Amino acid sequence: MSESQERLHHRHLEQAREQIIDLLTRQAVERELVSRSEGNSRQDVVAQLVARQQQAQLEQKLAQLHPADVAFILESLPPDAREAAWGLVRPERRGAVLLEINEAVLRALLGDMRPEEIAAVVRHLDSDDIAELLTELPEELSQEVLVRLDRDDQAEVRSVLSFPENSVGSMMDLDFLSVREDASLEAVLRLLRRQKSLPPEINQLIVMDRGGHLRGVLSLEQLLLSEPEREVKDVMTADPTYFYTGDAIADAVTAFEKYDLISAPVVNLHKQVVGRITVDAVVDAINERAQSESLRQVGLSEEEDLFAPAMESAKNRWPWLALNLLTAFVASRVIGAFEGIIVQLVALAALMPMVASIGGNTGNQTVALVIRGLALNQLGPTQLRKMFSKEFTIATVNGSLWGSVLGLATLALYHQWPLALVIAAAVLLNLWVAAAAGVLIPLTLQRFGRDPVMGSSVLLTACTDSMGFFIFLALAAVFLV
Amino acid sequence: MSESQERLHHRHLEQAREQIIDLLTRQAVERELVSRSEGNSRQDVVAQLVARQQQAQLEQKLAQLHPADVAFILESLPPDAREAAWGLVRPERRGAVLLEINEAVLRALLGDMRPEEIAAVVRHLDSDDIAELLTELPEELSQEVLVRLDRDDQAEVRSVLSFPENSVGSMMDLDFLSVREDASLEAVLRLLRRQKSLPPEINQLIVMDRGGHLRGVLSLEQLLLSEPEREVKDVMTADPTYFYTGDAIADAVTAFEKYDLISAPVVNLHKQVVGRITVDAVVDAINERAQSESLRQVGLSEEEDLFAPAMESAKNRWPWLALNLLTAFVASRVIGAFEGIIVQLVALAALMPMVASIGGNTGNQTVALVIRGLALNQLGPTQLRKMFSKEFTIATVNGSLWGSVLGLATLALYHQWPLALVIAAAVLLNLWVAAAAGVLIPLTLQRFGRDPVMGSSVLLTACTDSMGFFIFLALAAVFLV
Repeated sequence: MSESQERLHHRHLEQAREQIIDLLTRQAVERELVSRSEGNSRQDVVAQLVARQQQAQLEQKLAQLHPADVAFILESLPPDAREAAWGLVRPERRGAVLLEINEAVLRALLGDMRPEEIAAVVRHLDSDDIAELLTELPEELSQEVLVRLDRDDQAEVRSVLSFPENSVGSMMDLDFLSVREDASLEAVLRLLRRQKSLPPEINQLIVMDRGGHLRGVLSLEQLLLSEPEREVKDVMTADPTYFYTGDAIADAVTAFEKYDLISAPVVNLHKQVVGRITVDAVVDAINERAQSESLRQVGLSEEEDLFAPAMESAKNRWPWLALNLLTAFVASRVIGAFEGIIVQLVALAALMPMVASIGGNTGNQTVALVIRGLALNQLGPTQLRKMFSKEFTIATVNGSLWGSVLGLATLALYHQWPLALVIAAAVLLNLWVAAAAGVLIPLTLQRFGRDPVMGSSVLLTACTDSMGFFIFLALAAVFLV
Repeated sequence: MSESQERLHHRHLEQAREQIIDLLTRQAVERELVSRSEGNSRQDVVAQLVARQQQAQLEQKLAQLHPADVAFILESLPPDAREAAWGLVRPERRGAVLLEINEAVLRALLGDMRPEEIAAVVRHLDSDDIAELLTELPEELSQEVLVRLDRDDQAEVRSVLSFPENSVGSMMDLDFLSVREDASLEAVLRLLRRQKSLPPEINQLIVMDRGGHLRGVLSLEQLLLSEPEREVKDVMTADPTYFYTGDAIADAVTAFEKYDLISAPVVNLHKQVVGRITVDAVVDAINERAQSESLRQVGLSEEEDLFAPAMESAKNRWPWLALNLLTAFVASRVIGAFEGIIVQLVALAALMPMVASIGGNTGNQTVALVIRGLALNQLGPTQLRKMFSKEFTIATVNGSLWGSVLGLATLALYHQWPLALVIAAAVLLNLWVAAAAGVLIPLTLQRFGRDPVMGSSVLLTACTDSMGFFIFLALAAVFLV
């Protein structure tokens, strides 16, 4: 990223975006006018001139922006305008823009390009960045792009691609600067001065032995504050935080958060340095996790493009919709089994959704707490026992209290003491179900190697609905009819 | 943070935590034994010796850990063990540990301390860190601690506390290094060598004029790569990203993410440098936002301590529980209005929750998408219109499809064509309600200056439940009876 690119303040960015959208919309209108007035060649020429001028204006505007801002603008444009804007991004900047763009829009943009076009665009990027982009492409297309790269790039990209998706290896940066233990700081300073630039987010040099094994790190701070005559090994940090290529990204994120790291070396199983990870990648990882959490809870796994074709989005939602329908059907059959009692006491039909709803609501609160506990790694066996007993206490307190409130409301409406008692008891029992399900559903998903967030809210509601109806109607069948 | 503190790998940390919990539990048992065998003085002495030895062992273990790891351990301990462990943290390290700990646990720990004790603990911290801790305390206690600090600290802390809670000013670091434009790099290097250490997360020096106005930044990279004879103004970045004290933290977070910043200067309205913000504070801010999002969606606002007293947590959940009960009551009254029809056709009672449930499920998916769009600042007027029409298209596709599936299932169960048609139509209509409510609820919350996430899922379900019951039963009343 050159320093001359404009980094826009939030308010200015919004302005710039609106301007660009405005220009693009006007262009579309002009084009329409041109095509309508095809007979009239004079108007045609004028309109074309205006359009070309606006085009040039837009292209220049986009060229001045930071790639991240261009990405942001592309993400917020509807598909037709987005494609027009993409055409105006200068070819040599396209790779940098693609790196900043979200998955769904990335796929939409690359979907229309031929392998050799994609290869030409990504060629200017670092090999780890190329690998990152390729993982977003369909396997076949990704291979076709790969074979069109330079031989050296190919090898490096392949090596990055060989690491599992959620491993530190897959997100590391291959670019690092290393020095030897026995060098003097003076020599290191000279070495640096011969470089044109340093790898981004560099705050430390990696100290390796001849075999490439990690010996320590030399922070730029230590380098600047110490006397130049001293040797690297006297001022370096000999026990830095480092990661293995196979470590989980989540663990690296936790370490960066806790120890306020800027960058850290990545080593292979022989403790040879193979790369480093930097805080900007960590920030991206946290952000991705944060953005997708509430989506996953309602069963949306794919990062959905706000403007993906509606049919595609509709299909995306089918699996969990089908599951929801199935579980709702089960709940409906539970009620069906008690139809005889409902006919005798129709008030039951009106009251039963309340029991289900209050269970769903409190159960989802428990789910949210458990998911957070799991994400923070705070639920060991001891804590789990504590949490279980606490959620049951809360369910007992709230079930008794709000069950009574609901009982009194029922009494006021239907003037039947037994009915009031049954609904109060049903609320308490269903809150116990909600507490148990709220803790167990995310834990069970995790135990079976699934994402504890994915669809947890759908599953919880299924539990509390069916059980809520069952408890209430069964109690009614026993005590009321 | 001294370099000698151990930074633990995830796996080791879990081990250490289990060991400490284990030791603390054993201690509790020993204490009980001692109190039971109070007559027998010989056993008493032995038990006390064992306990003291374990105490010393624990204290040493904790002293070797990074403050962030100590905080993590304290967070995962139940209250009694936590207090015992807190007593073993050396006084001079307590401030650093408190900075890393979550809100709920912080309050629990500080709640038991007197103002002069707290003042003694925080005295070793930087003034911005002291301010951060004081904002977590009750106003009165915070004032009492404040007056017990040194005069200089007091002034600085008060100035930080004067910034609004979500402003860059409230999270900035007051510690920065500045140089003049006309200094030579050689002079800057000499200046640095006279320092004992640099402020944390430093990657650039701030270039100011005599009046303290921001002129640019000099990155350590530029300093290291350029010839020492050159002047600061020739190699500095003259238009760096900077923030005003009044800028929103959210905007700073966005800028750090987009431009991969490590630190940035903070200026007052006269563009005089008053501090800087660093990426570690930004990582904390992102993380806090991420952790609280799914909690807020179900109406849990306070960062809840996993081990806060159950009664307190139960009360925390009352406001939204009450709202949920109220809206469920409304839904129940909707059904109550149709009791006459349900008595005539009891199948309605069994089928109606399906219509409500599928509406709630798909509506919550829309809510999750809109909340993400809002968080990413991607919903301008143009995008909103697009999104609205897209969600309606999806609702139409999925409503027709899954409404038909449900209609066929109903036909198979009850052999009544009209009933099947009514439920299919009701599903489609309720999905339209869900699409509209899913977009409008978060937007309306935001328009009225509320948090668009807070309770959105509770409100959505209220809508889709009531409307689902109403649509289905009203259609049945018109077409079936």
